[in-house]
Amino acid sequence: MKIYRIDMKNLTVKEDQIEKYKNLGGRALTSQVVHDEVPGHAHPLGPYNKLVFANGLLTGSGASSADRYSIGAKSPLTGGIKESNAGGISGLKLGRLGIRGLIFEGIREDFQIIHISKNGFKFDDATPILGKDLSEAAEWLREEYGKHVAVWLIGVAGEQKMNLAGIAGQDKEGHPTRYNGRGGLGAVAGSKGIKAIVLDDEGVDKSQPKDKQRFREAMKQYHTWLMETPGTAKVFPELGTSALVRTTNTLGALPTRNFSTGSFELYENISGETLRETLLERGGEGSPTHACMPGCIIRCSNVYADKAGKRVTSPLEYENIGLLGSNLGIGDLDDIAEINRLCNEFGVDTIETGGALGVLMSQNVISYGDVQGVIEALNDMKEGKPLGRIVGSGAEVVGKIYGAYRVPTAKGQTMPAYDPRGIKGLGVTYATSPMGADHTAGQTIRAQVDHHSPKDQVKTSLGAQQSAPIFDYAGLCFFSAGAIQGRWDIIADLISAYTGQEISGEFLKDMGKNILNTEHSFNKMAGFTKADDRLPEYFYHEMNEASKTVFDVPQEELESIGVEGNAR
Amino acid sequence: MKIYRIDMKNLTVKEDQIEKYKNLGGRALTSQVVHDEVPGHAHPLGPYNKLVFANGLLTGSGASSADRYSIGAKSPLTGGIKESNAGGISGLKLGRLGIRGLIFEGIREDFQIIHISKNGFKFDDATPILGKDLSEAAEWLREEYGKHVAVWLIGVAGEQKMNLAGIAGQDKEGHPTRYNGRGGLGAVAGSKGIKAIVLDDEGVDKSQPKDKQRFREAMKQYHTWLMETPGTAKVFPELGTSALVRTTNTLGALPTRNFSTGSFELYENISGETLRETLLERGGEGSPTHACMPGCIIRCSNVYADKAGKRVTSPLEYENIGLLGSNLGIGDLDDIAEINRLCNEFGVDTIETGGALGVLMSQNVISYGDVQGVIEALNDMKEGKPLGRIVGSGAEVVGKIYGAYRVPTAKGQTMPAYDPRGIKGLGVTYATSPMGADHTAGQTIRAQVDHHSPKDQVKTSLGAQQSAPIFDYAGLCFFSAGAIQGRWDIIADLISAYTGQEISGEFLKDMGKNILNTEHSFNKMAGFTKADDRLPEYFYHEMNEASKTVFDVPQEELESIGVEGNAR
Repeated sequence: MKIYRIDMKNLTVKEDQIEKYKNLGGRALTSQVVHDEVPGHAHPLGPYNKLVFANGLLTGSGASSADRYSIGAKSPLTGGIKESNAGGISGLKLGRLGIRGLIFEGIREDFQIIHISKNGFKFDDATPILGKDLSEAAEWLREEYGKHVAVWLIGVAGEQKMNLAGIAGQDKEGHPTRYNGRGGLGAVAGSKGIKAIVLDDEGVDKSQPKDKQRFREAMKQYHTWLMETPGTAKVFPELGTSALVRTTNTLGALPTRNFSTGSFELYENISGETLRETLLERGGEGSPTHACMPGCIIRCSNVYADKAGKRVTSPLEYENIGLLGSNLGIGDLDDIAEINRLCNEFGVDTIETGGALGVLMSQNVISYGDVQGVIEALNDMKEGKPLGRIVGSGAEVVGKIYGAYRVPTAKGQTMPAYDPRGIKGLGVTYATSPMGADHTAGQTIRAQVDHHSPKDQVKTSLGAQQSAPIFDYAGLCFFSAGAIQGRWDIIADLISAYTGQEISGEFLKDMGKNILNTEHSFNKMAGFTKADDRLPEYFYHEMNEASKTVFDVPQEELESIGVEGNAR
Repeated sequence: MKIYRIDMKNLTVKEDQIEKYKNLGGRALTSQVVHDEVPGHAHPLGPYNKLVFANGLLTGSGASSADRYSIGAKSPLTGGIKESNAGGISGLKLGRLGIRGLIFEGIREDFQIIHISKNGFKFDDATPILGKDLSEAAEWLREEYGKHVAVWLIGVAGEQKMNLAGIAGQDKEGHPTRYNGRGGLGAVAGSKGIKAIVLDDEGVDKSQPKDKQRFREAMKQYHTWLMETPGTAKVFPELGTSALVRTTNTLGALPTRNFSTGSFELYENISGETLRETLLERGGEGSPTHACMPGCIIRCSNVYADKAGKRVTSPLEYENIGLLGSNLGIGDLDDIAEINRLCNEFGVDTIETGGALGVLMSQNVISYGDVQGVIEALNDMKEGKPLGRIVGSGAEVVGKIYGAYRVPTAKGQTMPAYDPRGIKGLGVTYATSPMGADHTAGQTIRAQVDHHSPKDQVKTSLGAQQSAPIFDYAGLCFFSAGAIQGRWDIIADLISAYTGQEISGEFLKDMGKNILNTEHSFNKMAGFTKADDRLPEYFYHEMNEASKTVFDVPQEELESIGVEGNAR
């Protein structure tokens, strides 16, 4: 597996030879490169930032839920290190081309399509697809380069270097709707003139495990566990992530009207159960379950269809429902699906978009529940009009623009759909993760703790923050954690058999910690201190009426694990 | 002299009794209160921030150029400590009321007029003057409370809690155009519901020096020096601060088109000499010289009149000409005066406004030189429309909204009108001052150094940063420095005679250092590190074609004096 450096200023490519990177993958690779090569003070959209794509070590191996890849850079949203992770088939195709990672350097004004095939790299003018909706742009790319290719691309938001711009990958049906959404990585791609990457695996052989027999056995065990575990075998396939709506609403953690409270009077209208019933009833192109990666047993994704059974968007996930639904006072799945569709077409992070719109609503610029107002604001974003630019800058900046006091962000990034007063372990993750507010950096919702108590939340979050990078290194979907969390030996076995690089469960545990420390170390160079390891002050002082709690995890405990903590 | 605490939530007042504050004044008092009482992580617009007004120790004494006062808080623009300083007569009137300082606490939604007289404090509903231009609001206040009062007030920008909102005081003619402009203190006032403070000294006796004879003698010496020094006796009264236009243009330090270069082809049209000739020629209400404080010998201010001799705005200073003129590609004094007038009417910092508009112009949202476009954007600001909100958020946030690379700010605040590649000592001040980019925090333009060389700039800036707070503590205008810089004994003598508190020149030198250290200490608690003691990266890498220099003061030298430096 190779790593290439692409100089976007001069449009040249060379194979990277740095020994240290050779056995790294996923978040381990992206964070190491950012740490080692990007100055802490670099302008995120300037020539000294780098954008790194890196497959996990198991990506393309055929193991279930294991085709994920990481994208990393210094984030224009948080000013810190960022890794964002997605599934779909784009990483898989990169792997088929024998490539582990792509390191993009330099900036340029125009936009390029980077075509990668067995013949190498080719740069084409991206003008024909600029300003287009992503479905149209992706269709054009497959017309141009062949139906068999997979793509990565940015939308109009990334072209305009907006803070909430993501990078879209493609699912196995060809829809460009698998997002490395968080942290404004689409803006970094935009600054480098990367409109699209076309992964053309024509004539390339499928890669094989180094030790086929061992890999087959490990995979069998792994798949058995996935199929024996209720979460991965039943809940996710049936209800997807939206199963969480009822859970968080009960806990008082479902963000409602700009995180002002944690339960929503219309929550049943937008629950996973209602979503499933609606899609089953409507039939047609919709489906309550869908595998974003070929062979995935968990199949948490879905395809949302309208009343006529025609596909509207995919996937409609818990975070989208929380941030674009209850957080905006919107209680109708068709409305949420339409907003989600626009987000996917324009290339933005749905969480950050929901956060930005929520703050705007708190300032009465748009009213809560005003679906038409939201759609107009998103269309303004597409066209780069002032209100659209404001939305495009993300919740933190919207707060600054309007002098807002209640801005649900940590390190500049919108909280995902869990009020930190209702699930305090996630509050700890938001405050202390080098990624800013990000549930995938240390999800605690399934931990056996009293989510309303401050007790044990720091320990719980730290454990989650240290294990999350293991999945991101392996290329495994975090949703497999329900079946294999702590069973690191099986992951080590899979990786050893697939790559021929012999590693142990202990090695993986160390890897998780090391990645986290590397990220904290970068953030320290970028100027982060303990003062940044906090939530916005209103979470400490204003009660969430649904959970009847404030965020009261002691600051000294928080600081034991943050950017300058010793307990990492 | 008393210090009062005003609880804006409950509209109650009490006299402060903290011993430590009793002998402090000006910036020494504002920075000490912010340091001691505001949590480093406090939201600048939330209930835990405080807004402190503090007279200098000589304010109201009758010494020339000595009626200045400080306003301080945690800044919504920089996120750090802020002191902003102004002249005019409002501080003087506060002093006549026997008050050294006002500490505002708490927040509220509605707006109040705080009337202070010999009878105490009274709170009146500010509704009648909300949304009005400042000249109209000030006129209304004098109609309501008597022609003899002086006022402090915020404009529509402060009401809307915009980052570039300042606090306006009044000159001796009653115009509310003396600004504590920098750092968004008007937004802090807005968050606390402070629309106006009316200083009503009816029936109050003029305060007298404790030792009249000694004070008279010290004042005589001080005034003699002011009148013997060419800068204070001739240049300032004749040309005002605009004398600098030719100087900085020659040095390649006149910010031009968003700080892209340091000389402006139309600089002669906007020079101090042209300004003086224009005003003398037009006659009428205009004047090339004007004392903002009664009895000021320096009289650097002016009144700008139109072709018919009618007053347009006052003052038109170097910073306004640089930021609203050359920085926007505007080379006509009438145009600059009209933009300046609108800034004064809406209650904004002209420097930050020019910075924000410059970044917008760099992104082609408005064209360079488009006066009408600027006026429309400012009117949008008044009305809170999206583009106006964008301008109102200041240059740093505009940069984030548009994904701009070249944003001339330090610690989030727009650079005043000196390109740091052309006057490198000011670059050091911008990078290392706890105030962010602020020439008044450490002006080096008159230092005997090669401004294009990196040599000795750190030492020069540090000296200036340590002496500036002495003036701000005393209530002296920094422009007296040309005559008395280093002659600390005369200031000590004036203070000792006036207040009866015996101090020495050495005490003052220590005071300057202590204030600076207190401010750095607050910023450290607020999360600032060495990583913040830098200029934007393009100043290090992109040559200013006018000065033929980049900013090349070595970072290790810079870091010897910044937030965590030891040489302070």
